[in-house]
Amino acid sequence: MIDTLNQDTICAISTPQGMGGIAIVRVSGIKAFDIVQSRWQGKPLSQCDSHTAHLGRIVNSRGNLLDEVVVTLFRAPRSFTGEDIVEIACHGSVWIQQQLVATLIDAGCRAATGGEFTRRAFANGRLDLSQAEAVADVIAAQSEASHRLAMNQMRGSFSRQLNDLRERLLHFVSLMELELDFSEEDVTFADRASIIGLAQEILDVIGQLASSYQAGNVIKNGLPVAIIGQTNAGKSTLLNALLHDDRALVSNIQGTTRDIIEDTITIAGTLFRFIDTAGLRDTSDTIERMGIERSWSSIERARIVLWVIDPTAPTAEIEQLAAQIVPRCEGKQLIAVVNKADIDTHNNPQPILDATLPHNARTIHISALNGHDISALEQLIVDTAALPTVGQNTIIVTNARHYQALTRAHTALDRALQSLHSGTPGDLISQDIRETIHHLGEITGEITTQDILTTIFTHFCIGK
Amino acid sequence: MIDTLNQDTICAISTPQGMGGIAIVRVSGIKAFDIVQSRWQGKPLSQCDSHTAHLGRIVNSRGNLLDEVVVTLFRAPRSFTGEDIVEIACHGSVWIQQQLVATLIDAGCRAATGGEFTRRAFANGRLDLSQAEAVADVIAAQSEASHRLAMNQMRGSFSRQLNDLRERLLHFVSLMELELDFSEEDVTFADRASIIGLAQEILDVIGQLASSYQAGNVIKNGLPVAIIGQTNAGKSTLLNALLHDDRALVSNIQGTTRDIIEDTITIAGTLFRFIDTAGLRDTSDTIERMGIERSWSSIERARIVLWVIDPTAPTAEIEQLAAQIVPRCEGKQLIAVVNKADIDTHNNPQPILDATLPHNARTIHISALNGHDISALEQLIVDTAALPTVGQNTIIVTNARHYQALTRAHTALDRALQSLHSGTPGDLISQDIRETIHHLGEITGEITTQDILTTIFTHFCIGK
Repeated sequence: MIDTLNQDTICAISTPQGMGGIAIVRVSGIKAFDIVQSRWQGKPLSQCDSHTAHLGRIVNSRGNLLDEVVVTLFRAPRSFTGEDIVEIACHGSVWIQQQLVATLIDAGCRAATGGEFTRRAFANGRLDLSQAEAVADVIAAQSEASHRLAMNQMRGSFSRQLNDLRERLLHFVSLMELELDFSEEDVTFADRASIIGLAQEILDVIGQLASSYQAGNVIKNGLPVAIIGQTNAGKSTLLNALLHDDRALVSNIQGTTRDIIEDTITIAGTLFRFIDTAGLRDTSDTIERMGIERSWSSIERARIVLWVIDPTAPTAEIEQLAAQIVPRCEGKQLIAVVNKADIDTHNNPQPILDATLPHNARTIHISALNGHDISALEQLIVDTAALPTVGQNTIIVTNARHYQALTRAHTALDRALQSLHSGTPGDLISQDIRETIHHLGEITGEITTQDILTTIFTHFCIGK
Repeated sequence: MIDTLNQDTICAISTPQGMGGIAIVRVSGIKAFDIVQSRWQGKPLSQCDSHTAHLGRIVNSRGNLLDEVVVTLFRAPRSFTGEDIVEIACHGSVWIQQQLVATLIDAGCRAATGGEFTRRAFANGRLDLSQAEAVADVIAAQSEASHRLAMNQMRGSFSRQLNDLRERLLHFVSLMELELDFSEEDVTFADRASIIGLAQEILDVIGQLASSYQAGNVIKNGLPVAIIGQTNAGKSTLLNALLHDDRALVSNIQGTTRDIIEDTITIAGTLFRFIDTAGLRDTSDTIERMGIERSWSSIERARIVLWVIDPTAPTAEIEQLAAQIVPRCEGKQLIAVVNKADIDTHNNPQPILDATLPHNARTIHISALNGHDISALEQLIVDTAALPTVGQNTIIVTNARHYQALTRAHTALDRALQSLHSGTPGDLISQDIRETIHHLGEITGEITTQDILTTIFTHFCIGK
């Protein structure tokens, strides 16, 4: 796949936006050395080896000193993009960064579009498409698990598995097509039973990959946990207790509805997305009732529901609430969090919970106020999430585009398998297998279009 | 001046905060190579030359892959700090940046404090103190003029001038002291008249430097321009017109008082700080009157006052306003901006203005609405500001600490000069000259204390 945009030499600020100690402006393309040389006062770049750093000065088009910089040179093909790259490390003033890019553009560069460096790395065969996509995931990863998945994908574990599947399918289809060529002689090159076994095995692998997407999506975007319960049961205190010393990794995401706040927290390397809701109670206040409606619907988005219970509340109230909550939690993991363990109460809600909660629900007694057993609750949440452990080689699909391609590959191969079972003619089977191969190739970018590439790379930040 | 903190190997994220394509973590100190090596999978760093870049992997303390990175090595003394430096260019995820710093700290680094890299550059004699201070100014510079001043200072023009003055003063004082040693023989080594001439010359240079601070401060922080006038004279429209395509370089600074907004704009390479004020009019509304009071006091902070005039307003009103404005603008540059040139008006305010405005005031007719003569107004503002042109070697003091030291040096030298004139004994004169030298030495850091250093460098960003 040849990318037609490769003629230009591109430049962009590659470090985060804003002011800092150092910023890096990256220049990539056939003219990278020449363009930077035209603004450079220092050792002639053409005489410098690849992978060397040089102190010197950058001047603007009027010859005025812009900054003292360190340039690092990477000669094609030993660079990220596979092209000549010059990285200019300047002082991190916003003004210098802007002026540096401006003077490079004056000297013949084009401003890079989002992800264009990575797109060139793909176009020049330095990365396949799924690896290129993983670069953006690596940069966006917020937890150890999502980081590791993205790193594994970027380093090619997923691509290797896909290539292995493709090769096996290609071998398979060549056998099928050889049979077709010799069909008049009624030759069979492969034992049908072993062919069916092979197809089934590949189908299973593709199926497993496709179904890993649900976990992958959760690992990447955070597992949704709804916190529900009566007003004053201590929901907000609990949320604060869960956020304790993780503040640095916490972000506030304003929900689509005004009264629901989502907070993401990393617990034991996994990202959880806590959905704080309005307190549940009977009310005639219209606005408050709307808030409560939203609390109920937030359960729908959750995988785990934390029902925070005030043990000092009347037994009848807890019973009534259980009757409302339990049916809404079908297919979800429900954890009854009996709060206020610090208060001496004679109303033990345990008998009601035992009587009303489904058998897979869990109960825990905590004090959100003094932090009692908060870490036990965290562990319970992690255990309940039961997400796969992500090791150095774990392959879990995290990308909707890959999931779609895998699903299509699965459908085509499943059709081929049914045909094999039913003794359908080989040419139809061969066509279905070719379709399977095609869909797997979409993931690694063997088959792609400019439109797909543009869609993928515009989600990247500028400078990568 | 030996800095006692130099034993630790320090690390910090040196690029701006946040997510980006690439981030750089910088490690400096005697153990920089060893510490990074302990987390590095790639060519052994001890075998690598200075100023070379290497692709490899960084693992955390548990041996798990953290990222694929490029490290660039700078061996002492050929580095920014003068110590061994390893720069690690990682993917710009916030998570990776945090983990990378964490694992380097686990491996024996200390997190660098603000400006600690530059402080080490100073301690190791790579920069003098005024050059080190200029590093922060280079990073904060928002206009071409302030950038150039900071660059000149960082590159040592100011230091060279100070060192030249110091040397001349040292020569001077040694002559004086030689005279004292031989005082019984009544020898004079220098012609008193030529000594007085020399002292006067140095005094003039120091005086010029000190008095350049006013311009320097304005260039660095922006020249304050107050926009005043009646309600509906078009002040806000004018401000917007002045901001036109400079939006990228504009920042909103919320004033200390709620109703005054400051906008900085770069015009012809100089930063202006426009102070938008509440409209002036007679009112009984208490809050509005407070706003008007603030408008008056904003004139005090301004160097240039733009009085925006609505020519359709009754002549008497304009006259009355002139009577209030003119006395308040004493010592400032007043520009009468007759707005609404797009409206055909029969009330020409020119005769009133000619009659009431001071002779150095300027008048211009514009239309803020359709942009008519806005660029002429900009040029008028630049001309009125009459700031010195900043060339590649211009020396203008921009730092309050330097200004203070220069003022003290000036006072001491002035005293010495008076003594020379009055024939005071040489030992007193010598003492005053030594004091002058001392104060000049404070600027370049020949004479300093840990406290001063700490004060200076805590204003730096982390990682520089």
